[in-house]
Amino acid sequence: MTDTLIPRTPSAYDYPLLIKSLLRNPVVDNPDQEIVYRGVIRHTYRDLRERVRRLANVLTGLGVKAGDTVAVMDWDSHRYLELFFAVPMIGAVLHTINVRLSPEQILYTIDHAEDDLLLVNSEFLPILEQIRGRIDTVRGYVLLTDEEKMPESHIPFVGEYEALLAAASGEYDFPDFDENTRATTFYTTGTTGLPKGVYFSHRQLVLHTMGVMASLGTVFAHGRLHQGDVYMPITPMFHVHAWGVPYLATMLGIKQVYPGRYSPDLLLDLIEKERVTFTHCVPTILHMLLKHPHAKRVDLAGLKMIIGGAAMSRALCCEALERGIDVFTGYGMSETCPILTFSRLTPEMLAGSPAEQAEVRCLTGLSLPFVDLRVVDPETGAEQPRDGRSAGEIVVRAPWLTQGYLKDHRTSEKLWEGGFLHTGDVAVRDERGYVRITDRTKDVIKVAGEWVSSLELEDILAHHPAVAEVAVIGQPDEKWGERPLALVVLKPEEAGRVGEKDLAHFVREYADKGMVSKQVVLLKVRLVDAIDKTSVGKISKVTLREKYLA
Amino acid sequence: MTDTLIPRTPSAYDYPLLIKSLLRNPVVDNPDQEIVYRGVIRHTYRDLRERVRRLANVLTGLGVKAGDTVAVMDWDSHRYLELFFAVPMIGAVLHTINVRLSPEQILYTIDHAEDDLLLVNSEFLPILEQIRGRIDTVRGYVLLTDEEKMPESHIPFVGEYEALLAAASGEYDFPDFDENTRATTFYTTGTTGLPKGVYFSHRQLVLHTMGVMASLGTVFAHGRLHQGDVYMPITPMFHVHAWGVPYLATMLGIKQVYPGRYSPDLLLDLIEKERVTFTHCVPTILHMLLKHPHAKRVDLAGLKMIIGGAAMSRALCCEALERGIDVFTGYGMSETCPILTFSRLTPEMLAGSPAEQAEVRCLTGLSLPFVDLRVVDPETGAEQPRDGRSAGEIVVRAPWLTQGYLKDHRTSEKLWEGGFLHTGDVAVRDERGYVRITDRTKDVIKVAGEWVSSLELEDILAHHPAVAEVAVIGQPDEKWGERPLALVVLKPEEAGRVGEKDLAHFVREYADKGMVSKQVVLLKVRLVDAIDKTSVGKISKVTLREKYLA
Repeated sequence: MTDTLIPRTPSAYDYPLLIKSLLRNPVVDNPDQEIVYRGVIRHTYRDLRERVRRLANVLTGLGVKAGDTVAVMDWDSHRYLELFFAVPMIGAVLHTINVRLSPEQILYTIDHAEDDLLLVNSEFLPILEQIRGRIDTVRGYVLLTDEEKMPESHIPFVGEYEALLAAASGEYDFPDFDENTRATTFYTTGTTGLPKGVYFSHRQLVLHTMGVMASLGTVFAHGRLHQGDVYMPITPMFHVHAWGVPYLATMLGIKQVYPGRYSPDLLLDLIEKERVTFTHCVPTILHMLLKHPHAKRVDLAGLKMIIGGAAMSRALCCEALERGIDVFTGYGMSETCPILTFSRLTPEMLAGSPAEQAEVRCLTGLSLPFVDLRVVDPETGAEQPRDGRSAGEIVVRAPWLTQGYLKDHRTSEKLWEGGFLHTGDVAVRDERGYVRITDRTKDVIKVAGEWVSSLELEDILAHHPAVAEVAVIGQPDEKWGERPLALVVLKPEEAGRVGEKDLAHFVREYADKGMVSKQVVLLKVRLVDAIDKTSVGKISKVTLREKYLA
Repeated sequence: MTDTLIPRTPSAYDYPLLIKSLLRNPVVDNPDQEIVYRGVIRHTYRDLRERVRRLANVLTGLGVKAGDTVAVMDWDSHRYLELFFAVPMIGAVLHTINVRLSPEQILYTIDHAEDDLLLVNSEFLPILEQIRGRIDTVRGYVLLTDEEKMPESHIPFVGEYEALLAAASGEYDFPDFDENTRATTFYTTGTTGLPKGVYFSHRQLVLHTMGVMASLGTVFAHGRLHQGDVYMPITPMFHVHAWGVPYLATMLGIKQVYPGRYSPDLLLDLIEKERVTFTHCVPTILHMLLKHPHAKRVDLAGLKMIIGGAAMSRALCCEALERGIDVFTGYGMSETCPILTFSRLTPEMLAGSPAEQAEVRCLTGLSLPFVDLRVVDPETGAEQPRDGRSAGEIVVRAPWLTQGYLKDHRTSEKLWEGGFLHTGDVAVRDERGYVRITDRTKDVIKVAGEWVSSLELEDILAHHPAVAEVAVIGQPDEKWGERPLALVVLKPEEAGRVGEKDLAHFVREYADKGMVSKQVVLLKVRLVDAIDKTSVGKISKVTLREKYLA
């Protein structure tokens, strides 16, 4: 035998997977391709390369070194795209600040990420002014603005972005370094607790781009992604790098459109005037676009659209298909970079009616290449049968998952318990491999070792004509482990005419027909006057558990 | 600043790029998809997984350990595909023996690669019997055969492939290991010298698969690669893993057809009966398929076909387009895993006539993502202008290039001189980024520091009505470095009617019109009686140089 481990010593033929490798070919092969901001500012890929080099000089001139963290508060812009490249390419970490957090939470994330430099859009100055006195780590501030006139501010800016770029050199020789160097960080927000930082290396972002691209080539129904496509994100760049698609669009060398802050008017306008053909958004945005008074005027036929962030309803999907939109589901989360699945359709499925297609297009979908996604039994950790019925938690391995939560060993260990990343999503999988998410683990009820979906029970009860509102929680039970407890508010006119047993019987009929787990026969129903909500109007199961299970 | 180098210590969230990761999803998502051998033997992807596990048990049972080398002599088969996976997945190296080499060369490669186990198709027993007495390293032989009856042989086989598989366990837990572990090796043959071994790691084969897939998704004219596609290679599996496409086809989970030895009848028959939609071959094979008497009978419309190995002529390309074949060029070589470029067409180009499309489809093409391909000045090493005229050598960096020639430090250093892999191909690049290969470096002539293509000059002179045969070599010249010397054989009936000056003038007219480099005015023409050839009928420039430049 010979020694077959090829040495890791860096050498000429060692090719680290660095973000700069996404940029080279598109810039040289498509130098005149456009990058458009709000339909007003237009740059080319040739400009992009030049501006990334200038930006690198600005950053290093301001003392940013490899390993430092550069934070950004901006809406989707050409500037953000430039930062997506320039910051990691000098070996620094890009912190994309979630501008929708409260000022206190933003302060927390700036401190926690130990940001060294902060670039801020003038629109967010009111937030920054509130917290600046308490920011410890930031050594310099750069102003981003769309206005001609500089805003009034007490913040001692080192300069304005465009002026700094104009004054910097357009030459920069980006170095090679270890592909496992951290490139980005950002914060996720759950319903409870402090924001948690996730982070991704150059290697991970490059492999995510390649993996998504490898799958996208097989996903679109009526054609390939090609040089004529025009990309516009409608999920924000501060959140999981706009699903990583700006990196992919750049690698493809296609025209890109950045819309700034999302307003339906502007988005539709840009889709029409810039001839956008490829985008991604949450169902709410799709709904908003379709229902907008101007929507009918805009030709949406052929638009390729990935839907994620929440389940798409079949009705919404059908509506989009009727407008000619090639809409399908992608699934992932902040911790997963994010994309793990696409609801790919086979040619046979594509021959189906819109309603038949919607059945598949609304599913969570099939794993991307290299994504080892398993639906596992909550007790044993073994994979559940692919029968479309056996629910389990989605756990995953892939080359592009966060290695944990930043500076939080305890929750990182929990996230990666047993060697797989635990998504907290509950799903079933059918015999074709398609995954369908049914729940979050914290909302399922374990009855006799089997997972019963509280969302499914709530959905059934909401269909009873007498029910105004319903929430289902798990009630500890000596014999069964847990039993589902439905808290129901009746419509005022139905009060006294429908009893708890009637409602339990109503659910049981679904079980008798085999439409839900047999275990729902253990359901208890309790009529209540009101259901407790959180400050943002969501049902507060935490409060309900405290109140009714004490 | 925080420490941003994510540690390399293997851990739960460390995801090495191993060949086994190409196999998992397709097997679980498409278990019933078929793998067909010669239209006779049919397995499913479920079988593939099971057979790969059995094969791993057979190999380890025969004493094959991580780092050992397993050699194969077979035509394209389901068995070869199984070996593509099983051998690297146990940490061993797969040596795909070029069965077209002479027995002596095969013996040399077996010795040089230090093969431990050899699997051989009964068709190659006559070759093996000739050399077996002189094979030192091989500890065991396994017979591969399509026949019912075992062949007569003096070789002490440890068993026959199917019998060994049948007797082995179908369970095997493939381990994780370092992605830089060598997975494959095979030998290239130039026109001179001993075969040279190139080698690829798991990481390189996985990244090649991802990179090619990412590009293929954008390359096909009239549709995507999809679940309904059917793949059949028509470049042999022993040569650069059939361009790596069997790995890609497996990752895609599509039906695969392996034809055994290539016969035009069988190939057309398989294309028709198995409904092949995706293949790759050299121009000669395409020509042979189109000219075959049965070709008209077979519907080739929609066939996706990558052409490589040699330049495709426009006439052949047009003929293929007329039959509805979506044919385009891919470029690469043994040392590059192999694919570096595809001749991608933009939507505007696709709107052109077949003749206009052929102009692009016959080009070497555009770099794949992550392929840093440069056409450089032979003197300075600087990139040549993208003017479609300035010739230079193609040098390249990519994540999937051989790190050198096996156990040959000297030629490895030369291959990687200056940190780029030197392809030895001479090309020009146009303003759109499309590369066009014009020559091999050893066939160009450096006139006043500029490269003049001997092939181009030969092509021009061959168009003169009096010329029967021509070869151009470089003659050392004190003033110009080199001057082109054309050795011309006239047609018998033209002898005495056309002189050396007439021919030189004929070439000069092309230069005057700006169709070739001005330097060709330095051409000298010499009329000769015959042009020396090699044993296989190619012009022997080595002999010509010895004879006319002494």
